[in-house]
Amino acid sequence: MKESAKASPASDQESFHMTPDEFRRRGHEVVDWIADYFKKIEDHPVLSRVVPGEIRASLPASAPLQGESFGAMLQDVENLILPGITHWQSPNFFAYFPSNNSGPSILGDLLSSGFGVQGMLWATSPACTELETHVLDWLVPMLGLPEKFLSTTSGGGVIQDTASSASLCALLAARERATNFASNEHGCDGKLVAYTSSQAHSSIEKDVKIAGLGRKNLRLIDVDENFAMQPEALAAQIQQDREAGLIPCFVCATVGTTSSNAIDPLPPIGRICRKQNLWFHVDAAMSGTAALCPEFRHIQDGLEFADSYAFNPHKWMFTNFDCDCFYVADRKALIQTLSVLPEYLKNKATESGSVFDYRDWQIPLGRRFRALKLWFVIRHYGVEGLQHHIRKHVSLAQQFASWVKDDEQFELAAPAPLNLVCFRHKGGDEINQQIIDRLNRSGDLYLTHTRLNDRLTLRFCVGQTNTELRHVEGAWKRIQEEAKS
Amino acid sequence: MKESAKASPASDQESFHMTPDEFRRRGHEVVDWIADYFKKIEDHPVLSRVVPGEIRASLPASAPLQGESFGAMLQDVENLILPGITHWQSPNFFAYFPSNNSGPSILGDLLSSGFGVQGMLWATSPACTELETHVLDWLVPMLGLPEKFLSTTSGGGVIQDTASSASLCALLAARERATNFASNEHGCDGKLVAYTSSQAHSSIEKDVKIAGLGRKNLRLIDVDENFAMQPEALAAQIQQDREAGLIPCFVCATVGTTSSNAIDPLPPIGRICRKQNLWFHVDAAMSGTAALCPEFRHIQDGLEFADSYAFNPHKWMFTNFDCDCFYVADRKALIQTLSVLPEYLKNKATESGSVFDYRDWQIPLGRRFRALKLWFVIRHYGVEGLQHHIRKHVSLAQQFASWVKDDEQFELAAPAPLNLVCFRHKGGDEINQQIIDRLNRSGDLYLTHTRLNDRLTLRFCVGQTNTELRHVEGAWKRIQEEAKS
Repeated sequence: MKESAKASPASDQESFHMTPDEFRRRGHEVVDWIADYFKKIEDHPVLSRVVPGEIRASLPASAPLQGESFGAMLQDVENLILPGITHWQSPNFFAYFPSNNSGPSILGDLLSSGFGVQGMLWATSPACTELETHVLDWLVPMLGLPEKFLSTTSGGGVIQDTASSASLCALLAARERATNFASNEHGCDGKLVAYTSSQAHSSIEKDVKIAGLGRKNLRLIDVDENFAMQPEALAAQIQQDREAGLIPCFVCATVGTTSSNAIDPLPPIGRICRKQNLWFHVDAAMSGTAALCPEFRHIQDGLEFADSYAFNPHKWMFTNFDCDCFYVADRKALIQTLSVLPEYLKNKATESGSVFDYRDWQIPLGRRFRALKLWFVIRHYGVEGLQHHIRKHVSLAQQFASWVKDDEQFELAAPAPLNLVCFRHKGGDEINQQIIDRLNRSGDLYLTHTRLNDRLTLRFCVGQTNTELRHVEGAWKRIQEEAKS
Repeated sequence: MKESAKASPASDQESFHMTPDEFRRRGHEVVDWIADYFKKIEDHPVLSRVVPGEIRASLPASAPLQGESFGAMLQDVENLILPGITHWQSPNFFAYFPSNNSGPSILGDLLSSGFGVQGMLWATSPACTELETHVLDWLVPMLGLPEKFLSTTSGGGVIQDTASSASLCALLAARERATNFASNEHGCDGKLVAYTSSQAHSSIEKDVKIAGLGRKNLRLIDVDENFAMQPEALAAQIQQDREAGLIPCFVCATVGTTSSNAIDPLPPIGRICRKQNLWFHVDAAMSGTAALCPEFRHIQDGLEFADSYAFNPHKWMFTNFDCDCFYVADRKALIQTLSVLPEYLKNKATESGSVFDYRDWQIPLGRRFRALKLWFVIRHYGVEGLQHHIRKHVSLAQQFASWVKDDEQFELAAPAPLNLVCFRHKGGDEINQQIIDRLNRSGDLYLTHTRLNDRLTLRFCVGQTNTELRHVEGAWKRIQEEAKS
């Protein structure tokens, strides 16, 4: 049957709604489309080749008055949208940090969309809250995290959209603890100071601006030759700030910086925080997942000093965006910081004090049922399945690092403790820029850059769900080709 | 074939990954499950009946070591999760504001999960950014919004997770504009003042705390007998604050308050803001969708004075959570407020200045491809299909209001301009509490309460996708029954 763009066969003619049976038929089509997309994903250039404005120019200038057929929409996804996609799920995607994905995650997320529940309060869908608490408790022993992060102690975990939001929540709780909740009441006074390393994620700078501390009151502590924070420099800076009459309140250490995967030394930083009574947040957005494997768990030694911790299953744990797991040791501090209770949200379960209302653990009010996809991922793979893939990614990255080391033209630019390799051609910035531009333009793979010791550096991160040895070998071959030409 | 919990037939045995073909098979199962759920949704008690801890108690204490079968997971959704769901998608859901949904939205969201792209920068998936800009431009004439919100002018729209986050972004931009970006740099100083009505959403109080202004510096302006902000009171308060040496910076007006759907008078408030050079944000989280129909568009008269505006297709426009549309008239102010550009995110498209990088329009860095579902909804229904349903919901609510008015036992507690009816039994708080408790416990429908003029008030909001006359009639019958007993 030919589908005209005007007719709306996908809906009940009278109500315009898609009927359950039509949903079934169209849903199967979309599932098939995605399955086919996954099968053919390596045929697409990894980095989209469209120019600014190209996608928009292909779209009608205004919305249709009458409904269109679902078939027309799916065809437009294929013809108009697909060329504008950068294929994050391609096994040849080595850029940034990954944002990987898996079948069980997508299907868990589909159920979440179908249920369409709002998990702002326990009462608005108890399963949404309880499954989230439960799965985040599962992850504590899975990752070897301190028991204080369990919901059965004084702490607990919650799913945030991103690590940026998690660190903002941590900073806000730190701000309030340091001022006895006076900042919430009276506003900031420009005296609170936060600390992180010069290599920390840019979100920390964004957070201190948002939270009213001001960029000037964020101290970017110097790093050592491995790009890890220098604890002595941190201690000295805190001392200096106290002497200047300022109020140090928050330290963010990173386990696996975005730039080079540097791992800040948590034990000495943690001890300083404890001695100085500063909120200690640990951001392990990508690398935290490695702790699934006992042999990598040392990266989080010192977490026993942390007040809060975040890692993103939506980066390296096969769970599609968004899913950041944020833990606090003292949930009361977080809740007291973020809770506002208007009449229209009051209910008996909340008043009983026996439930978590996760709206008080995050910036926005509304929240979707994100625990479903995480639950599906953990159950589908099992702990051993997840470990298998993390080990494989690390091993592939280490192989890549060994090839770099053995090649006279290239050098490693930083230690590669896990799955990110920072490297460069010895010929200087210009040749490295040419290599990366040509590689990315070719569509064969996608990598991104950083600057380390003020030199252009290529980043090669292995974390895409379906990346195999052949993709890493192919990438290295292509890098060498471009270096020669 | 019987599936054991230990075997993992849903995955490639060697890799543990779900293969595309297995994804196809399991995806069809999940789609079918959702279609069946929609067919049977009225069989479930609308409000979940589980007690705190009940869901958790049904789940294993620790994560499985080996992967489990997908069939076992889907069965657990049916047996363990479903009883803990409060059915927001039931046509008998009249609580809070709706968070409605539709087939095309769910399937658009499924595609987004499948693509798994990160739209933080234009370059990281151009289609994700351009479709979002495009669809938000479509909505400007669809809703009769001022042209200054078009991306082709100095403004533009972006999808946020929630209206809470949108108003936080607006407040931050207001804070920076008022201090010439000094707050971002030096932090807040406790002198900035924000204004909203005493009936505004609690997120505004949360926002001023987060942004470092402090709760004390939020003025809750008195409302009139219709629960709408009194512009004279606003003007007087601003004057008083200026005289006290404070710096007024931000006014949030509400089109459709959560408590009673009150509509603040935008024209006089807007004129005050313009005269006083205050950032004027308009929050129309649910009610904004009504402007799809020309006959309801008067609710946003005065929007020509606004600096920013937000409404949520994920409330009343058949688009599943999360999807808030946030518009600014001066995008530069927003971007300058929220932009931080580290080396690892630099790229040629950004440097060219010819693209939007939406990470600079929001709190977090990462973002998923949310425009797909909104695009699907608009195209599936067409403008006329959407109008049809909004008119129907308003008409059903008005019918309900007329029944309340005609019943001697009940009274309206506030004007009902659109789809929310606030009403109460004349017998006082206790009887109203009993009515709502019994109705919600019965599982037949779900409503929530508020307090207006310090009296317990029942809220009846018509906005669920599949609510028909028979559901509203049934609800009114049940309310009358409980009032009698």
